[in-house]
Amino acid sequence: MFSVSSLRSSKIRLLNPPSNHPPPISHYFPRLPPSILSLNPQKRAFKHRNLRIRAIDAAQPALPVQRLKRSTLFVDVLSVKEFPRNLFLQILPLEFDVLCTHPMFGPESGKNGWRGLPFVYDKVRIGNEKSRISRCEKFLNIFVQEGCRMVEMPCAEHDRSAAESQFITHTMGRVLEKFGLESTSINTKGYETLLNLVENTSGDSFDLYYGLFMYNKNAMEQLERLDMAFESLKKQLFGHLHDVLRKQLFENAEALEVTEQKPVLPKLLQNGVTVEPPTETMR
Amino acid sequence: MFSVSSLRSSKIRLLNPPSNHPPPISHYFPRLPPSILSLNPQKRAFKHRNLRIRAIDAAQPALPVQRLKRSTLFVDVLSVKEFPRNLFLQILPLEFDVLCTHPMFGPESGKNGWRGLPFVYDKVRIGNEKSRISRCEKFLNIFVQEGCRMVEMPCAEHDRSAAESQFITHTMGRVLEKFGLESTSINTKGYETLLNLVENTSGDSFDLYYGLFMYNKNAMEQLERLDMAFESLKKQLFGHLHDVLRKQLFENAEALEVTEQKPVLPKLLQNGVTVEPPTETMR
Repeated sequence: MFSVSSLRSSKIRLLNPPSNHPPPISHYFPRLPPSILSLNPQKRAFKHRNLRIRAIDAAQPALPVQRLKRSTLFVDVLSVKEFPRNLFLQILPLEFDVLCTHPMFGPESGKNGWRGLPFVYDKVRIGNEKSRISRCEKFLNIFVQEGCRMVEMPCAEHDRSAAESQFITHTMGRVLEKFGLESTSINTKGYETLLNLVENTSGDSFDLYYGLFMYNKNAMEQLERLDMAFESLKKQLFGHLHDVLRKQLFENAEALEVTEQKPVLPKLLQNGVTVEPPTETMR
Repeated sequence: MFSVSSLRSSKIRLLNPPSNHPPPISHYFPRLPPSILSLNPQKRAFKHRNLRIRAIDAAQPALPVQRLKRSTLFVDVLSVKEFPRNLFLQILPLEFDVLCTHPMFGPESGKNGWRGLPFVYDKVRIGNEKSRISRCEKFLNIFVQEGCRMVEMPCAEHDRSAAESQFITHTMGRVLEKFGLESTSINTKGYETLLNLVENTSGDSFDLYYGLFMYNKNAMEQLERLDMAFESLKKQLFGHLHDVLRKQLFENAEALEVTEQKPVLPKLLQNGVTVEPPTETMR
């Protein structure tokens, strides 16, 4: 846990995803702008123009809220938004501003720069004072300057949308990783798409994936939908197989009857009377 | 069925994937070189330099082998290889040359040219005569000139490899199509990979997909492997969920015991004698 004794009111707090074994900050914040990381990648304190930014590990047992100065901007960069939003509104006194963000890229997808990559944010609670509004804008501006596509969106809407897109992407990537995709000499374009997907998601930890599932209330529904889609495809495949085989069986049987011209004996009742076949007029 | 009465010995036969309602040749052969298609896109006969090429619909009830001139090169462009290979060796007289090919791209993946795209072929049976060898090379050269990456590979090896790559790609594309992926305002790079995959495979018919499954003996095993990978991921997810919840339950229970400092009464046997707790030395 980092010391908070020297914090001043102008500072911003960043909450990063939980981790049991804290590595250096460059690992924690792969999504912090290079302009910040380049200042001091091994420490948890940054300066960006007139902003002082400190990082807090979300995995620490308790946030030392009572020891922080008032008028601090709290920012989280977690991959789910509604759960931390509700938590912050519940535990942070009204004097704290809350900005929930999700830079929707990671070390792999953002390795060639962040131009055009989506940065989602929700100004959950920003005080009316000019200095507070300006502080929030200055923070967001860091990402504007990096070329991110800024998307303002309520936390709940982010979670609905992310469960359908990001969570399903990670699920597919992990399924294919378990399947054990390997590059072949005859890769189709589509197959290379799958190989890219695995590369894109395999660098992320299981903790992140589990977090996407556990802390997004929409994730389970989407997992079930994916399950149903897979089952439906298998049914379609095996159903078609059944149809084809049945058709062949019946056609073969008919062909046999025609070619062999077997004499058809009339069925007899137990008393020896011939059973009349149903006539054409019967329906 | 097209007329074969005017065929000459220099001609090449192409077998295309089956279809019940023959559309024009440009639809049948999206993978024939543009240089050929441009000659006469509505007919099934092509001329490429000194090669005369005719197309035969593989769905026709019976190949009119007995009506074809000897010394014809048979080429198929189907997406599975071992099944047609064995069929050709069984039904075509020894005088017919057999070249099994798979241009591993379609209308979508090949729309911007074929440079670098894999063209798999297996010279299943090419006569020793110079003219026959040369005819086969001339045909392959059409694709060399289009920039394809030529991969010579036995039919069985193609099918093993294609079941792991092409069939799984189509399966994933179809699962995601059924799931109903939609572009959002916060698409991650990985999610866009999935959207591309659906676009890449959704243009293909179910017949093609069913063919990849039915006529490739390796497909079922790969479908089962994919199923197992999905099940394994779900188990991992729910297993972790179970672990976390159980840990919380037990920790809460322990915390309750410690904080409430309940007096622990010694257990009594039925005769009222106190049961001694196990000592530290017991292991």
